[in-house]
Amino acid sequence: MADETNDFHLSCPVPITQYPHVVMAHGGGGRLMNQLIDRMFVAAFGNPALEERHDGARLDPEGRQLAFSTDSYVVRPLFFPGSDIGAMAVNGTVNDLAMCGARPRWLSAGFIIEEGLPMETLWRVVQSMREAAAAAGVQIVTGDTKVVDKGKGDGLYINTAGVGVIETGFLIRPASVRPGDAVLLSGDVGRHGMAIMSVREGLDFESPITSDCAPLAAMVLDLLGAGIEVRCLRDLTRGGLAAALNEIATVARVQIDIEEAAVPVTDPVRGACEILGLDPFYVANEGRLVAFVPAEQARQALTVMQRHDPGRNACRIGVVKTEFPERVTLRSRIGASRILDLLSGEQLPRIC
Amino acid sequence: MADETNDFHLSCPVPITQYPHVVMAHGGGGRLMNQLIDRMFVAAFGNPALEERHDGARLDPEGRQLAFSTDSYVVRPLFFPGSDIGAMAVNGTVNDLAMCGARPRWLSAGFIIEEGLPMETLWRVVQSMREAAAAAGVQIVTGDTKVVDKGKGDGLYINTAGVGVIETGFLIRPASVRPGDAVLLSGDVGRHGMAIMSVREGLDFESPITSDCAPLAAMVLDLLGAGIEVRCLRDLTRGGLAAALNEIATVARVQIDIEEAAVPVTDPVRGACEILGLDPFYVANEGRLVAFVPAEQARQALTVMQRHDPGRNACRIGVVKTEFPERVTLRSRIGASRILDLLSGEQLPRIC
Repeated sequence: MADETNDFHLSCPVPITQYPHVVMAHGGGGRLMNQLIDRMFVAAFGNPALEERHDGARLDPEGRQLAFSTDSYVVRPLFFPGSDIGAMAVNGTVNDLAMCGARPRWLSAGFIIEEGLPMETLWRVVQSMREAAAAAGVQIVTGDTKVVDKGKGDGLYINTAGVGVIETGFLIRPASVRPGDAVLLSGDVGRHGMAIMSVREGLDFESPITSDCAPLAAMVLDLLGAGIEVRCLRDLTRGGLAAALNEIATVARVQIDIEEAAVPVTDPVRGACEILGLDPFYVANEGRLVAFVPAEQARQALTVMQRHDPGRNACRIGVVKTEFPERVTLRSRIGASRILDLLSGEQLPRIC
Repeated sequence: MADETNDFHLSCPVPITQYPHVVMAHGGGGRLMNQLIDRMFVAAFGNPALEERHDGARLDPEGRQLAFSTDSYVVRPLFFPGSDIGAMAVNGTVNDLAMCGARPRWLSAGFIIEEGLPMETLWRVVQSMREAAAAAGVQIVTGDTKVVDKGKGDGLYINTAGVGVIETGFLIRPASVRPGDAVLLSGDVGRHGMAIMSVREGLDFESPITSDCAPLAAMVLDLLGAGIEVRCLRDLTRGGLAAALNEIATVARVQIDIEEAAVPVTDPVRGACEILGLDPFYVANEGRLVAFVPAEQARQALTVMQRHDPGRNACRIGVVKTEFPERVTLRSRIGASRILDLLSGEQLPRIC
């Protein structure tokens, strides 16, 4: 997200008189590509690894085990209330690493740019990535730039891969989930997807819905630092809460039983979902997670999560059971129980 | 490259009766995406890290320093003589890691698939990646799948990022290049770009030109194992030999003086370049490198390189000088010298 008070917000560092838009040659391995890399990417992300202009970066994990993850970002539109593709590309991979119990350290960035993208647009995205990286404490140490023909892209796709240092002896993964574990949720669900939807469809809600896009690593590291025996973590991106819980229930071969009323959904998100016939449990988030922890540590874990901005409204939403393995069950206010299944696809495409 | 004798070459593991083409839901975080990941990607790349189906993979670098690199592949067409986008996506990142003096170990794979891509095409690419990974000794341990709307992609883009373990105490990088160093080239140049060009433009040369796409890590590790004090390595992808040498000359602030006649170019490539008005020194390769080594070790280094298939025709092509810093000079057969400059873009777009 652009912070207009930041000194770095100068005008676009690539001369835009001659090339106001990205041309094929910006991905061609010649002078124009070198100029773009030096003046824009290295200038924005600057660190010794990147400045060496070598084929790869050197990392020193100091003998620790690592987590490694990747995600491509194809969100449409590139900018939306509360965030943009650049911040998402950093936070998304930061969060994937955090879900492994790792401190995110190093990112790669691969840009696939459609010929004709305004250079100023690219610059806004790069600045947003720079700020998100600084906020999450990661360095963008290596990258790649490709330009594809006009009409053969959608403005900009970004891939990030990340390496983080694992800071726990616990194996944080679906297979570690145990019957009786408490299911904690870090906050309200459905905001990212509905923020995208509102822009894309030109919907005008009374209260604008903003994306929840945020880095979750500090909260996770704080949980581990507090001695919480975290069994599994999952951020609630594509497919939302329902997909995350179903994947964990399947791999761990357990039942996950959720109390429907315990899952926070803001009024604007609930209203927008009702109008559009969507279920907020299936809508993507970019700054929310579920944590599976031993029941006796649930209260302490919530206190830790609530100290962090993206965990301010953290709450306990359910419990791990054994009666219906590989099923996610939803208990309603009046005690009825139904299955929260996976959809075959998604309600909203291209939201991440 | 597909090896038709390989037992793994079964029919497409995703049922194609119902979905013969990729649909948006294959990237939607629901049942169809899970099916695609499980039956195609995990089945093909299968390893414990991937099978855990977690947000990231766990790596154990055993206390070593690492190299980290990324590349996106947007080559058009997806299949061409001698290779395809899948083998390129593996070998390209393997080679970038090797250029850092690292043994490539772990790859991520990010797929951006255009809605409508035939499922069989995706399967051919995945099999090719699997074989290339096995040949290069790397594991594909984490990945991501996105589907973009029909018309908003070009069939398939692939990003790979890689982590390798650095196996040398030398700092292999442009800044380590010294005056007097010998410049070695691992083989003939221009084949990859001209192979792509011949398919794309429907050109029918007498002898078909095949891509030189190949993994270079074994050759590099053998050089280091033989005690060659490798100063810098660079693979000759976008912009070809000319771009690689110019980038090194600029960063190292040296002159690189090349003997034009010493650079091998096959007759078919030379002929095709002449017809099309292209210069083979600027054409991309996917299995060629330049190595800068101390002059006194040049002969030994060539012997090591020639033991490896992609280095069979390795030769000495020039020397590092100081007279014209940041310049690449080309000496012709009759002794005239000219500057081998960077182009502003590239001669052929979308060749990698």
